[in-house]
Amino acid sequence: MGASGYTGAEVMRILLKHPLVKIKTLIGENSVGKNISEIFSNFHSIQLPIISSLKKADLSNIDVLFSCTPSGVLSENIDKLPKKLIIIDLSSDFRFQDIDIYNSYYSTHNNPSYLKNFIYGLSEVFRNEIRNKKFISCPGCYPTSVLLPLIPIIKKSLIESEQIIIDSKSGISGAGRNTKQALLFCENFGSMYAYGNGNHRHKPEIEHIIQTVTNKNLKIVFTPHIIPINRGILSSIYIKADHDKVRECLNDFYRESKFVKINKKNSIPKISDVVGSNLCRIGLIKNNNSDWITIISVIDNLVKGASGQAIQNLNIVMNFPEELGLDNQSLSP
Amino acid sequence: MGASGYTGAEVMRILLKHPLVKIKTLIGENSVGKNISEIFSNFHSIQLPIISSLKKADLSNIDVLFSCTPSGVLSENIDKLPKKLIIIDLSSDFRFQDIDIYNSYYSTHNNPSYLKNFIYGLSEVFRNEIRNKKFISCPGCYPTSVLLPLIPIIKKSLIESEQIIIDSKSGISGAGRNTKQALLFCENFGSMYAYGNGNHRHKPEIEHIIQTVTNKNLKIVFTPHIIPINRGILSSIYIKADHDKVRECLNDFYRESKFVKINKKNSIPKISDVVGSNLCRIGLIKNNNSDWITIISVIDNLVKGASGQAIQNLNIVMNFPEELGLDNQSLSP
Amino acid sequence: MGASGYTGAEVMRILLKHPLVKIKTLIGENSVGKNISEIFSNFHSIQLPIISSLKKADLSNIDVLFSCTPSGVLSENIDKLPKKLIIIDLSSDFRFQDIDIYNSYYSTHNNPSYLKNFIYGLSEVFRNEIRNKKFISCPGCYPTSVLLPLIPIIKKSLIESEQIIIDSKSGISGAGRNTKQALLFCENFGSMYAYGNGNHRHKPEIEHIIQTVTNKNLKIVFTPHIIPINRGILSSIYIKADHDKVRECLNDFYRESKFVKINKKNSIPKISDVVGSNLCRIGLIKNNNSDWITIISVIDNLVKGASGQAIQNLNIVMNFPEELGLDNQSLSP
Amino acid sequence: MGASGYTGAEVMRILLKHPLVKIKTLIGENSVGKNISEIFSNFHSIQLPIISSLKKADLSNIDVLFSCTPSGVLSENIDKLPKKLIIIDLSSDFRFQDIDIYNSYYSTHNNPSYLKNFIYGLSEVFRNEIRNKKFISCPGCYPTSVLLPLIPIIKKSLIESEQIIIDSKSGISGAGRNTKQALLFCENFGSMYAYGNGNHRHKPEIEHIIQTVTNKNLKIVFTPHIIPINRGILSSIYIKADHDKVRECLNDFYRESKFVKINKKNSIPKISDVVGSNLCRIGLIKNNNSDWITIISVIDNLVKGASGQAIQNLNIVMNFPEELGLDNQSLSP
Repeated sequence: MGASGYTGAEVMRILLKHPLVKIKTLIGENSVGKNISEIFSNFHSIQLPIISSLKKADLSNIDVLFSCTPSGVLSENIDKLPKKLIIIDLSSDFRFQDIDIYNSYYSTHNNPSYLKNFIYGLSEVFRNEIRNKKFISCPGCYPTSVLLPLIPIIKKSLIESEQIIIDSKSGISGAGRNTKQALLFCENFGSMYAYGNGNHRHKPEIEHIIQTVTNKNLKIVFTPHIIPINRGILSSIYIKADHDKVRECLNDFYRESKFVKINKKNSIPKISDVVGSNLCRIGLIKNNNSDWITIISVIDNLVKGASGQAIQNLNIVMNFPEELGLDNQSLSP
Repeated sequence: MGASGYTGAEVMRILLKHPLVKIKTLIGENSVGKNISEIFSNFHSIQLPIISSLKKADLSNIDVLFSCTPSGVLSENIDKLPKKLIIIDLSSDFRFQDIDIYNSYYSTHNNPSYLKNFIYGLSEVFRNEIRNKKFISCPGCYPTSVLLPLIPIIKKSLIESEQIIIDSKSGISGAGRNTKQALLFCENFGSMYAYGNGNHRHKPEIEHIIQTVTNKNLKIVFTPHIIPINRGILSSIYIKADHDKVRECLNDFYRESKFVKINKKNSIPKISDVVGSNLCRIGLIKNNNSDWITIISVIDNLVKGASGQAIQNLNIVMNFPEELGLDNQSLSP
Repeated sequence: MGASGYTGAEVMRILLKHPLVKIKTLIGENSVGKNISEIFSNFHSIQLPIISSLKKADLSNIDVLFSCTPSGVLSENIDKLPKKLIIIDLSSDFRFQDIDIYNSYYSTHNNPSYLKNFIYGLSEVFRNEIRNKKFISCPGCYPTSVLLPLIPIIKKSLIESEQIIIDSKSGISGAGRNTKQALLFCENFGSMYAYGNGNHRHKPEIEHIIQTVTNKNLKIVFTPHIIPINRGILSSIYIKADHDKVRECLNDFYRESKFVKINKKNSIPKISDVVGSNLCRIGLIKNNNSDWITIISVIDNLVKGASGQAIQNLNIVMNFPEELGLDNQSLSP
Repeated sequence: MGASGYTGAEVMRILLKHPLVKIKTLIGENSVGKNISEIFSNFHSIQLPIISSLKKADLSNIDVLFSCTPSGVLSENIDKLPKKLIIIDLSSDFRFQDIDIYNSYYSTHNNPSYLKNFIYGLSEVFRNEIRNKKFISCPGCYPTSVLLPLIPIIKKSLIESEQIIIDSKSGISGAGRNTKQALLFCENFGSMYAYGNGNHRHKPEIEHIIQTVTNKNLKIVFTPHIIPINRGILSSIYIKADHDKVRECLNDFYRESKFVKINKKNSIPKISDVVGSNLCRIGLIKNNNSDWITIISVIDNLVKGASGQAIQNLNIVMNFPEELGLDNQSLSP
């Protein structure tokens, strides 16, 4: 559902390579009757169903629905969906157990009664809970890049100050395929900028999940930036903490992880180390003469930051091997 | 062999996802003793053998050797390799059955006696011959993009003039990972240029293969250009021919092809429609008031133009399904 | 007039540095009442008049009008303008003395009676005629890059065949600041494509001007491409001609030119050699074993291909030094 | 001196448009005897002297020397230069009055006795001192982007914590024209990364100048990043301070400034707002629920961050109008 956006296309791209999944139905209200290749030219010569409306779609033989619509659409329609469906939502509709946050950062929630049925789909952190849920709300792209390094550290109480400064940089695909002037090629090429006005929607998401998992109220400053590339997020996270303990903590937490990898000392990951893959790579910088460290975390915003993590959650909930269909190496150069 | 270049890395990246291949040995004279992750940071956390020299490498349990070295290296060493080895060469060493062309465009050939044992690995054209050979010489990147559309057309005698104008544009990875000033980021960003001085080495390769397959001596003008992207070739090929007949011919020739796809009328492929995939997409432009048509052919120079086609050839020679391990959809956006 | 487009902004950017010009009025129907800095953020802290509608604009103290509107707008309004105005038009409205071409490639012309009053503003070719006209119609961006090298050659009858193949590549600013999906960053980054379907509007413009100047009907194949940069056109022009004679002819024709420069033998211009400047740089490639040569011509599409040439024409018509306010060196790297 | 690097070329590019300067001599040890157009293709058809060695250069009729060499070169040669010369140095040789910092971050200083003769050429801060000096040491690119916003704020004691977090992003031209693998196009396209290992040389420069001007020892965390563009730095600076007071302070300090511009509330500058110009644009973000603010500062690293500021200093020391030859608007798009 939501087949004509970038995250919808990315879900399809990955699922087409997934050995245990068949795409049965594509839903997209603005593209009813179209072939997906009319919407994305790189789907030319790929066989997929014609796009239908939600109303007309045959969902009888569907086990799992990926919902890639803008916020508000799934919550408006969730009551009409077959009860047996596993729903993996990539929007923000069910990310906040605290309805007040949703209402103040988005618009009035359409269906808060469903909130308690959803688990936040940060795979490495909520793996066990995901396994037992039918409804999964996938994290935002920035929060994924920030929470994966921060949650183990905060859980272990390794942060010595309440203050966390997060300076994130994202490729432009994070803004979707909207025909806005700010997203034109010529407005971005050779440039970059900060945005969000000190109040980006992913800030309360980060705070909320930290609070949920660790019971700690930390003070987040979050400045997102747009950089002139298609895919990738690099988050530079500044915390007051001991470098060696943080490194040990992250190494321990992610030792067996297929997709979260801690770089060795003096090695810092680049965005090109993850593009096209479901990896989150994390590096640590010990700042000279300072008790603050810099954590560098990189993901592909469309994969680990959206559609890849959604499919990782599918693998978890279906008891498939967690890495099925997902790349653990970037396309580079 | 040649593990530290871009085509070597790309062979590894694809083989790591190939279900019937195991990488046993990495050879690279300039990187002996190193882990591949010291050379390519996106191989961090990937398990592969330490790089050894050809001299010290244990080749006893190897079935197939991919040779990704600069021209001259394989021909110098081929006598020392185990006789049973299947060799898939990505260099130019054995592309020319006519030794004079090699000698005048490269340097004096080290071992011309081997030439007759090699088949030119343009998979879709020489599939049957490849199946019966042990030694495969993979085409250059530009020639792949040009010969795939041209050979069926020339075979059918659809070109009405001897003249073919080829205007090719390539991403910078085609030039390899050499630390030359011309390859620096700042020398290429926001720019593009023509090069080759009317005499690029891929011109005689195109002429030679056309001559070999079709027995026709066509006059090629070939102007390669560098465009500021990493991956991708777009070749604009100008021939005097009937648009409808050419379209029919190409549709017929590639109807069953997994990787060569002919765009529909009025649809022209972009480089982003093939990046990361082993596809060659071809579109046709009927020029208004003209008896010339423009053929647009796009490939990923590192995949179909090099390492992907090499693995397609592996699949052919090993009687694996031809598409094994290879993507038929691009990473886009 | 047309202050909110890229060519309008570029006219302003250059005029702000022109020592003999003052910008008195900005006209833009869609931006009435706005400060130009609300439309282009790089005009923050630049002092310019508030944008007004054509109807309300005070034109009484204006000597020269730059018209940067879409095609059809100037021709619709030209009757209402003060008679004494010098008009420098950057649209296609008055480029074709043959009204039939305009009507078949654009839409029915609004005011063909004015056509005879306009001179085609290809500065180096029509300098003398421009000096004596009040109305100047500036060339399209592609035609500028193509006609500057071709006209001297055709005039001297150096082309041995009727056929000219033109393969042009343009940065994305040539498509203007329209919020179309095809112009989004993510749709173009790391990609390129051909377009125009064999029938781009600049093809008849090139043919028409060649016919006007040289009285020759040449057959043009013209394939424009979009490359992922902001500014710049590189045209690769294939003609059957003698390299040495063509070089001599161009050197002769442009020996004194401030802005058209012929590269030395074996030196081919890059787009980065002209970005930000009013230059057209031209290089020649002698193709091995061929009687065809390749001409490489590069311009900045927003400067020599639009606003810079418009201001060069202003300098000519006002009898200012021709290079006033215009850069003869690119911004590079 | 140092004509073959990017900052040397940029000094030449700007001086060629400066109405009161004539370039008399070019010095470059690695390019002796060459025309500058052999080194930078965008200097084709520009008339400049042949490059000579320092030893052979005729400096008798030179008033001002711009030194654009790597660190250590000027300090080694300064004793041999004519005493009357005004020297504007773009290297780090004379930026630190405290020789220990230089020695520990660079190598042992060649000529510390000259240090006291140099003034740090941050034009807006040291304008009066520059006017009375003959020797000017221009700031590093990152420090320029950081010190211009910070110094007025620190002087006014508006920072409520000792801690300053600086997250800077730079285009690749900042690394110079060195043929290193890390600077290749393919290693940077579509990517970005942090570097400097918590100990970049510009960190002590920032601390040292803050200490010099304000007598305060502030704790700086500085993380530089490379972004895939040619020109531009965006520094995101996190301080604990009152947004309104900081805004007022910066507006006051830079009210008359030709080149430092404070964006209006809710307006944040982009890199494209300054590319090609000598501007530093500064915006302020008031973070929701936080007593930290984010300052966004953008410059063109080759202009205000290097060669442009050098020429601004020339204008100051020569009593020319400060903006002579320098652009106050970016080239955009």
